[in-house]
Amino acid sequence: MPFEYLPLPGTPVEELDTPALVIDMAVAEANINKLQKWADRNKMGVRPHAKTHKTPLFAHKQLAAGAIGICCAKVGEAEVMVAGGVREILIANQVVGPTKIARLMALAGDANITVAVDDTSNVKELSQAASATGREIGVIVEVDTGMHRCGVEPGAPTRKLARLITSSPGLRFDGVMGYEGHVVARRDLEERKTEATASAKMLVDAADDLRKAGLPVKVVSAAGTGTYNITGTVKGITDLQCGSYIFMDGDYLEVFKDFSSALTVLATVISRPVTGRAVTDTGIKAISVDRGLPKVVGIEGAKVVGLSEEHGRLEVTGAAEKLKVGDKIRLLPMHGDTTINLYSHYACVRDGKLEAMVEIAGRGRSR
Amino acid sequence: MPFEYLPLPGTPVEELDTPALVIDMAVAEANINKLQKWADRNKMGVRPHAKTHKTPLFAHKQLAAGAIGICCAKVGEAEVMVAGGVREILIANQVVGPTKIARLMALAGDANITVAVDDTSNVKELSQAASATGREIGVIVEVDTGMHRCGVEPGAPTRKLARLITSSPGLRFDGVMGYEGHVVARRDLEERKTEATASAKMLVDAADDLRKAGLPVKVVSAAGTGTYNITGTVKGITDLQCGSYIFMDGDYLEVFKDFSSALTVLATVISRPVTGRAVTDTGIKAISVDRGLPKVVGIEGAKVVGLSEEHGRLEVTGAAEKLKVGDKIRLLPMHGDTTINLYSHYACVRDGKLEAMVEIAGRGRSR
Repeated sequence: MPFEYLPLPGTPVEELDTPALVIDMAVAEANINKLQKWADRNKMGVRPHAKTHKTPLFAHKQLAAGAIGICCAKVGEAEVMVAGGVREILIANQVVGPTKIARLMALAGDANITVAVDDTSNVKELSQAASATGREIGVIVEVDTGMHRCGVEPGAPTRKLARLITSSPGLRFDGVMGYEGHVVARRDLEERKTEATASAKMLVDAADDLRKAGLPVKVVSAAGTGTYNITGTVKGITDLQCGSYIFMDGDYLEVFKDFSSALTVLATVISRPVTGRAVTDTGIKAISVDRGLPKVVGIEGAKVVGLSEEHGRLEVTGAAEKLKVGDKIRLLPMHGDTTINLYSHYACVRDGKLEAMVEIAGRGRSR
Repeated sequence: MPFEYLPLPGTPVEELDTPALVIDMAVAEANINKLQKWADRNKMGVRPHAKTHKTPLFAHKQLAAGAIGICCAKVGEAEVMVAGGVREILIANQVVGPTKIARLMALAGDANITVAVDDTSNVKELSQAASATGREIGVIVEVDTGMHRCGVEPGAPTRKLARLITSSPGLRFDGVMGYEGHVVARRDLEERKTEATASAKMLVDAADDLRKAGLPVKVVSAAGTGTYNITGTVKGITDLQCGSYIFMDGDYLEVFKDFSSALTVLATVISRPVTGRAVTDTGIKAISVDRGLPKVVGIEGAKVVGLSEEHGRLEVTGAAEKLKVGDKIRLLPMHGDTTINLYSHYACVRDGKLEAMVEIAGRGRSR
């Protein structure tokens, strides 16, 4: 790939070329510290999900604040993190098939790698590969705590799988995880509390059930950003897998303001064809729409009414009618993770100036 | 960014690691040839839009078949194409601001670059940069032919802008373009015909109006994949900007079968937690959903019912109940362009075997 022209540190944010994925570093750092301090007070581990930022720089900031390790969604993300010096990784997902498992074993030479499982055939292929390479990996059972995506039922199915892991060469049984993904973005706090607590208790009960059966359980891992202070107060949970809290996004800001908005996309007005309409250079290849249209930040009367591949269409009224070709505006994406995954670099900004362009090394690492 | 493990040529498609963006090369080549032959018979130029494939390899296949040049949406895509040896590029979009225009002038030293404009201040900044660097760029006026996104009205506003271009140092007035984007995916053929013809005639009339005013018009460029054989038969149109035809996607296959499906995403079943549900490793970071959920190809009774970031949820009934952890399935994305923009490489396949992994060098080049 040909090089890309990148702006120098010190460049004022309003001079950055667009579309630019702008991170307010002070806000991101405050979010990291706020979650960590809450967890420290509540004697809870933080294992931040790196699928949000996909970047060793931010993982190291989380670890420096006190995180016990990080989560990844894919082996490809874990490769980026191990190459970037991270040594404690939970792949909170099933790793299936010979190619991915060979890559997993390569990583296990340099880092403590744990994976989630919910299937006996998968346990067997992991064990065979670990034995063949002389490597050990940690394995946790994913329990379905109500989301009904992956995961086994608590009780007998969880015990069966945990026993199989314990008796499988090359595998170290570490515990259980559950993800209450059906609850994390529920707007109503009372509903969120009730349902997240129920999910967390289901997981803790599954862990206790394993202990009664003589299987030692070290890890009982759960939670997303929206349930950190609910799941995180349930006795028996050991650590929290929050990811989005580091930058927040439009969707989570509708859930709560516990963390602040660090991520915006800078866009340029490229056309003002008629009264009432402005068009930007930022379409769905530069801002994701899977959770709705982005919002214009700080300009009264400007509203995103549609995105096509390369264009954003704004309705402009009142003061926003003054927007002209070449003006820059800030957009708040509704979904941070999928927007970040479109970019090769973050524009990391402090006090209104570029601190550094940071490569999103895990971008697109879906394998 | 750390390296990525890539499979060797000759690998059977079913052994590729997933998610993989698979292109059936014979089908893509047949699509390229079919459009070109149709255009040759109708004495029409083809200027394929490279925003779909974002890859010099495919641009060169289109040029070898007879295309007169290519379109790009962004300067960043044009940089990739010029670095890859393409020498005739229309950026069918407004290029605004000093950074992008400096990059545009750099490209104009190696290739014939034309840009679209719809604003006088933009014409002035382009002219100043061209004069300052001693470079010449082509400029065409974008006319709003009914899409109501960018573009000026035909008649007086178009004449005014064309005259300004003609009198601006460093700029070469090349003609007009219009994009009937509101019509290209209309399912009803008669409606598509009526509206696309109206848009094309509006553009041709605008060109004739300029000629009457003494302004020579060389380029009258329009059309998308869904209107190639409508817009392409309107006398006075000079060339077609179709992009999606090369691979097609689920959305366009609902419009017509003039071109065939060359693009699928290979996914792996990673969980079979309960009867009736299978979960894949392919979520919205690996397949776009802005035009709807992907479709399972060739498996009776398997249906995608939801995608989260990293997971695809399938409803499986009948024969599809046999799907097991580790099985691979093919998914047809509803929107090709935005799905391609998620990947670093194509897996280019011929006769069921990998021919080459091809870097998508223009991926993410939204600036």
